Amino acid sequence: MEAKASAPGKVILFGEHAVVYGKPAIAVAVDKRAVIKISENKEDTIKVYIKNLNISATIDQLNNHIIIDNGNPGILKYVLESLKRVHDASPVTIEIDLDIPIGAGFGSSAAVTVATLAAASKYNHKNLTKKEIAQKAHEVELSVQNSASPLDTTISTFGGAVYLAANAEEIKKLELNWTYPLVIGFTPRKEDTGKLVEKVRLRKEAYPDIINPLLDAMGILTETALKFIIEKKYSYLGELMNINHGFLDCLGVNTKELSNMVYTARKTGALGAKITGAGGGGSIVALCPENNLKILSALKNIEDAIEVNISHEGLEFID
Amino acid sequence: MEAKASAPGKVILFGEHAVVYGKPAIAVAVDKRAVIKISENKEDTIKVYIKNLNISATIDQLNNHIIIDNGNPGILKYVLESLKRVHDASPVTIEIDLDIPIGAGFGSSAAVTVATLAAASKYNHKNLTKKEIAQKAHEVELSVQNSASPLDTTISTFGGAVYLAANAEEIKKLELNWTYPLVIGFTPRKEDTGKLVEKVRLRKEAYPDIINPLLDAMGILTETALKFIIEKKYSYLGELMNINHGFLDCLGVNTKELSNMVYTARKTGALGAKITGAGGGGSIVALCPENNLKILSALKNIEDAIEVNISHEGLEFID
Repeated sequence: MEAKASAPGKVILFGEHAVVYGKPAIAVAVDKRAVIKISENKEDTIKVYIKNLNISATIDQLNNHIIIDNGNPGILKYVLESLKRVHDASPVTIEIDLDIPIGAGFGSSAAVTVATLAAASKYNHKNLTKKEIAQKAHEVELSVQNSASPLDTTISTFGGAVYLAANAEEIKKLELNWTYPLVIGFTPRKEDTGKLVEKVRLRKEAYPDIINPLLDAMGILTETALKFIIEKKYSYLGELMNINHGFLDCLGVNTKELSNMVYTARKTGALGAKITGAGGGGSIVALCPENNLKILSALKNIEDAIEVNISHEGLEFID
Repeated sequence: MEAKASAPGKVILFGEHAVVYGKPAIAVAVDKRAVIKISENKEDTIKVYIKNLNISATIDQLNNHIIIDNGNPGILKYVLESLKRVHDASPVTIEIDLDIPIGAGFGSSAAVTVATLAAASKYNHKNLTKKEIAQKAHEVELSVQNSASPLDTTISTFGGAVYLAANAEEIKKLELNWTYPLVIGFTPRKEDTGKLVEKVRLRKEAYPDIINPLLDAMGILTETALKFIIEKKYSYLGELMNINHGFLDCLGVNTKELSNMVYTARKTGALGAKITGAGGGGSIVALCPENNLKILSALKNIEDAIEVNISHEGLEFID
């Protein structure tokens, strides 16, 4: 017996950091996915393998415990929390195929969580709906991280582009029929997301009269981007991405390497380019209706880069 | 008979571009100067030499005409307009010694204008006061450029640090008893100031709901810097410079090279670093209470750089 599912990673186009202060955000699912296969095994434990990350581990679901054989355990906490919600603890082998870079703002944990919940739900004949899976996936992220926006898990479940309204009061799937490739440049993450969020908070507390209007303007920028997406004026998004990058620089999460990649992408013909995710190292996203191969190669010369496209498919069950 | 005077260049610390929209600015005079010597000659014309720029020319003051023998004539327009206001058109030789980089936001034209007016006024026994010279220098800049803020000519005349209030309603000399060196990094200017000002205007017109609050926040940032200067909390200025740089990035006047220098300066130990002047190529300024030699050398490795100190001396007559 086996069950298989996959779910996509995401890229934030507008609103990172500002979202912490109740501002809206826009993100898109991308064609880099977590594929999870769950199959019965003859052992008496749950085994997990992530081949391309060289991770192998044993999960003791009943005792809420992960025994690492090899590799970094971070992502496995999401697997354990997912299993606890839909799996009967019977011995299985979980094979994870992950082509989403970890810890670079691509929502790899949300993708692994959504796909694990889906595969395990199918394996256990629970037939959860996508809505139920998205709900449980958000619970998993909350349980592992203590705090989490529902943005990543919603996008990974439903795919496409998603608008998270102010104060997270509404999550709306957007019609987005573009074919613009995105080029993602990434540097090794140097500061963790929590520390970067804290850094922004300290700057906001030190200079509220400067930073609060800036955060308000970031919210208006995301609303303006939403308007352009609804009106299908995609080419207008480039300049907004560039302005958004400047705001992130004001907040103190830019670095020399990110800035170098952002300006290289723009110089090489990107319509717009900005930090995506928390910054401080991490990733940049460039909107590339043209010149995508040239930009990809220019960014690879600096650090590392991949080309992604928007994935309209979210969670998929694989027969 | 001869007369000699010198006047300093300046660096903008806060408020460039925002000043166009009535926001305040803060700038300081630096120890890079224009030295002007006017001496009687036996020819029947006014000769001008700028040795280090390899410029030589003849000025026909009565016919309002410059005949270039060699070099770029831009700066000579300020010499002619200055002479017209204080010189009797008699044959003289004007030697200009300029250690201020031209066209890099250092106020070289204001320094040349102030020093020329002063030297020519002395030569002609007019004994203008500093206030009268500052006033005439502003008239010269207006006449050559059609528009000009009185900031550069005021700083060059009076030295030290100067605060230009909102809507240029007041120019105030600030007490500034610091000894922090500034390191200036500069790239060849690629876009002229007028085009950059126009670029910002277009962005403001396209996105008033985003850019207007940003300009307001830039004004508040300069007021906050003024408060720190008055309270002698100079070390707080670094973070404000960094935030100000982000705002200039939002406005679209940053470049890959400027950004690289700004982040290199910060990484090498600058308290703060930002674009100074119009951007689009041009210069950056780093506040360096420590590590100034290290930062100077790091920036020289990228493009070119000089160390400057605040000059408390403005216009000086030299005996």
